[in-house]
Amino acid sequence: AFKGAPEFSGEGGWRFKPRGRVQLDAGGINAPSGLSGSGNDRLGVGTELRRAWIGFEGAMPGGVGYRVDVSVGGSSVSLADAFVSYKAGRHVTLKLGNQKPFTGLEDLTANLYTSFTERSAVSEAFGFERRLGLSAQYTSGDVIVQGGVFSDNLSTISADTAKVWSVDGRVVFAPKLGSSTLHLGGSAHYKELGGSVVSSRYRARPFLHSTDLRLVDTGTLAADSETQLMLEGAWISGRFHASAESRWMKVSRPGVANSTFTGGYGEVGYLLTDDTTAYSGGVFKRIKPRHGLDKGGMGAVQVNARYDWVDLVDGGIMGGRQKTAGLSLVWIPVSNLRLLVNYGHSWVDDAAVTADGDGSYGIDSMGMRAQIDF
Amino acid sequence: AFKGAPEFSGEGGWRFKPRGRVQLDAGGINAPSGLSGSGNDRLGVGTELRRAWIGFEGAMPGGVGYRVDVSVGGSSVSLADAFVSYKAGRHVTLKLGNQKPFTGLEDLTANLYTSFTERSAVSEAFGFERRLGLSAQYTSGDVIVQGGVFSDNLSTISADTAKVWSVDGRVVFAPKLGSSTLHLGGSAHYKELGGSVVSSRYRARPFLHSTDLRLVDTGTLAADSETQLMLEGAWISGRFHASAESRWMKVSRPGVANSTFTGGYGEVGYLLTDDTTAYSGGVFKRIKPRHGLDKGGMGAVQVNARYDWVDLVDGGIMGGRQKTAGLSLVWIPVSNLRLLVNYGHSWVDDAAVTADGDGSYGIDSMGMRAQIDF
Amino acid sequence: AFKGAPEFSGEGGWRFKPRGRVQLDAGGINAPSGLSGSGNDRLGVGTELRRAWIGFEGAMPGGVGYRVDVSVGGSSVSLADAFVSYKAGRHVTLKLGNQKPFTGLEDLTANLYTSFTERSAVSEAFGFERRLGLSAQYTSGDVIVQGGVFSDNLSTISADTAKVWSVDGRVVFAPKLGSSTLHLGGSAHYKELGGSVVSSRYRARPFLHSTDLRLVDTGTLAADSETQLMLEGAWISGRFHASAESRWMKVSRPGVANSTFTGGYGEVGYLLTDDTTAYSGGVFKRIKPRHGLDKGGMGAVQVNARYDWVDLVDGGIMGGRQKTAGLSLVWIPVSNLRLLVNYGHSWVDDAAVTADGDGSYGIDSMGMRAQIDF
Repeated sequence: AFKGAPEFSGEGGWRFKPRGRVQLDAGGINAPSGLSGSGNDRLGVGTELRRAWIGFEGAMPGGVGYRVDVSVGGSSVSLADAFVSYKAGRHVTLKLGNQKPFTGLEDLTANLYTSFTERSAVSEAFGFERRLGLSAQYTSGDVIVQGGVFSDNLSTISADTAKVWSVDGRVVFAPKLGSSTLHLGGSAHYKELGGSVVSSRYRARPFLHSTDLRLVDTGTLAADSETQLMLEGAWISGRFHASAESRWMKVSRPGVANSTFTGGYGEVGYLLTDDTTAYSGGVFKRIKPRHGLDKGGMGAVQVNARYDWVDLVDGGIMGGRQKTAGLSLVWIPVSNLRLLVNYGHSWVDDAAVTADGDGSYGIDSMGMRAQIDF
Repeated sequence: AFKGAPEFSGEGGWRFKPRGRVQLDAGGINAPSGLSGSGNDRLGVGTELRRAWIGFEGAMPGGVGYRVDVSVGGSSVSLADAFVSYKAGRHVTLKLGNQKPFTGLEDLTANLYTSFTERSAVSEAFGFERRLGLSAQYTSGDVIVQGGVFSDNLSTISADTAKVWSVDGRVVFAPKLGSSTLHLGGSAHYKELGGSVVSSRYRARPFLHSTDLRLVDTGTLAADSETQLMLEGAWISGRFHASAESRWMKVSRPGVANSTFTGGYGEVGYLLTDDTTAYSGGVFKRIKPRHGLDKGGMGAVQVNARYDWVDLVDGGIMGGRQKTAGLSLVWIPVSNLRLLVNYGHSWVDDAAVTADGDGSYGIDSMGMRAQIDF
Repeated sequence: AFKGAPEFSGEGGWRFKPRGRVQLDAGGINAPSGLSGSGNDRLGVGTELRRAWIGFEGAMPGGVGYRVDVSVGGSSVSLADAFVSYKAGRHVTLKLGNQKPFTGLEDLTANLYTSFTERSAVSEAFGFERRLGLSAQYTSGDVIVQGGVFSDNLSTISADTAKVWSVDGRVVFAPKLGSSTLHLGGSAHYKELGGSVVSSRYRARPFLHSTDLRLVDTGTLAADSETQLMLEGAWISGRFHASAESRWMKVSRPGVANSTFTGGYGEVGYLLTDDTTAYSGGVFKRIKPRHGLDKGGMGAVQVNARYDWVDLVDGGIMGGRQKTAGLSLVWIPVSNLRLLVNYGHSWVDDAAVTADGDGSYGIDSMGMRAQIDF
């Protein structure tokens, strides 16, 4: 069967599917002149091949599964998901390898399905990333419990002096209420730095990814450990969805006061066409248009609004605050093609990058994406 | 169906095919002793894995298509074609992503099908490359019109300070005249440098790719923009083909006189076996032997002769001139396997690399390639 | 048919199969305190994505075959096998491309099937690697003769100043004696350094790969050439196998005395379950459990013991000696999944890394691997 690419099945539980995605971005960012550090040179109009991934996934007899996604950039390469899984029973699945440490609804939703080209700023600011680890997931009825122990991302652990480990857990309760779904969740995270990894840094791009400039940025901080708490809520009902998350990150710093940074977002979305928002397993999924371009229809069209913030000012650290209000228009002409336009206005305060010496100013961003996946 | 690799089709227009190619080169370059900059150390016998690509291409219902080719070197990686396409009507196809900006007959012909191991020197000298952009192609009868707007190659645009853009267009008129095809074409290109990209460089290897030494080389020039004009002509008739291109590149340089560099080539080829040169859509295509090794035959054998030149001397820039006369023997035992031997003699004048202080001398190159693709 | 991944066949000899493997390691190394060069910081507990490979292999009408394996790390990429092959007759196969230069039983056995997470120390110490070259293999009855000419690894030859070449040959005699197989083999290797490659280095990790610390290490030596001789012996009989290899490496050094380094190993293994050790074509192959997890069985379980040594002290070079005794437990729940635990105790003498100034000490290593391949 074709699921973007052909999926092959064999007797006894064999399964195999090629995987791939291409995301092409263009956009522009308009900021006040006089940004410190020649910041203006890094804004303006920009284009980007945001992601080009190829890989494989499959299953083997006995409940064994695997996935490998290779991400290729202009001259770089990295691994995204790269794991082996095992269905240890009706309710329990184990997963060993490079994977996301249960970072929350928005981050666990594949970057193919997010409502804006980029996730909310806290996602980047708090360093969400895949890590090498062993995890377990228990699913029963409306409840999902996830937990794991992790070392660090593959790039960091390629140094044998890195001695980082973390424990991460998440609980989701997602009852069906009539034809709607309520999503309530929370997660806790503890990461201990060690060995040659004795510092951390928190920063975020302004709405779009095409620039590498971060207006809010704590700089590199000496750190011992990070403790995070997150709360999630969502309501999914036919064409409509609303979701919100809030996060707290306490950074333990040697010899000085701890800092606690916060961030979060609230989002609403509505499908203008007769289509349905897709949610299952504690994350948002692929919206498949009922009347695609291939059937003479126009596909699915969704509008979304999001407000997100990140606050990197605490305990003597002045990393700045960034709030962004955004609107997006998503067009899904056929199931595996997605076009997205979004606009965001950001307000920064106490920013690490100043405008003519002033740390408080506003910027406007307009971005587009064309995406295909299989 | 097998097209090198299996191609899978599904109802409604689904299509999927893995892609790959391996090109293995060996060769030797014989130059006078006393090359400046220890140049002789970089010549002599050399081997190279010229290209190893893997990727996917496919199509989706509604006229959507895609291709991703990942090129892997000894320790490097890059993206070749990486685009999404859309058939917007009977005559028009749009293409968004990393692609060739309509650089001409020889460059647009896949590197799997070129008559020599390397394209003519002007191809390298004038920096032909894939760029991120949006293009449209109109085809009707014997006419092809192509045009697009592009930013830069993926490696350059990974810097957010790069602000380069180009417009590129090409027209081809290719009428059938009896059993033959005439190809007439022309293209125009304008590229504006900007942001942190304020310079350019024009240089070319001598005939083979195994060395990184360039005998002709302008060095890095401060530059504002590049304007290129190209003319193409070809005649394809059964076993025979002849083709020629000529190009002019005007480099606009801030505060000094512009420089105009030129280059081109003329080529003739003839199939010794009862096979047919393949041409369609404004480029050369795969020659499929009528009597392959698998059918007890010997496959297709082609001889080619080419003369190419590049002139990098103008407006105070002394980058040198290089002319090369080459002969090649191509053997295609079966459709997707290709063996190629070629010899070239190059004459350089005012070369950037001198031989005992003299900028005029000759060199001989002998190269071989084994290639498989799917 | 599914062979891990689906294998596709077409009329006339077409064949195509995706390839992949993931190896996930965790382990710990316990050494005396006071290692020189802050060596202790690089030991202790470590995790690693040891290998993530994706690729393709296939065949074409006329006896042509190919394979491309791309190895992806945290932020790096390289090519493993990348070759074109041709069956030149009933007994002879030619292979052109990146391949192993017939380095011996253990090294030619795929890293998917080795009895321990890492091969014996001599494998790393003597720099076994794939190289670009042309090889031929003659097989007839119980005899295999292999030989080839090679340049260097792809990373080295990307520099056009590298002028290295080698000739490598191996002979195997492997008669069936009843239901058992005897394996006798030997190989000889000559590598001449040249151009910008004028030095060599011999060193090895202690048992596990998670650290990059090498206790034994000659440092960089000026060198002209390397001559290697290797002897191989093995006995494979149902559940049981024993194998041993011994190697001598003479390093020719300009202006000083030559150094001859040695290394080798002896290994025995036994399958606790009713399964059979797999051997063919002069190497060990995949053990396929008779009663896999998918059939309600527990898969195959194998215990192995190995003693290996490497001696890098000769001719004025004091690189140290390392001996390791190891035990491993291999569990193969289903054919393409493999779990491995191994423990090793190493003794080093005259080590390059000293413990409180003493070059003689012992270390303990415990490692685990989870592996899936297709």
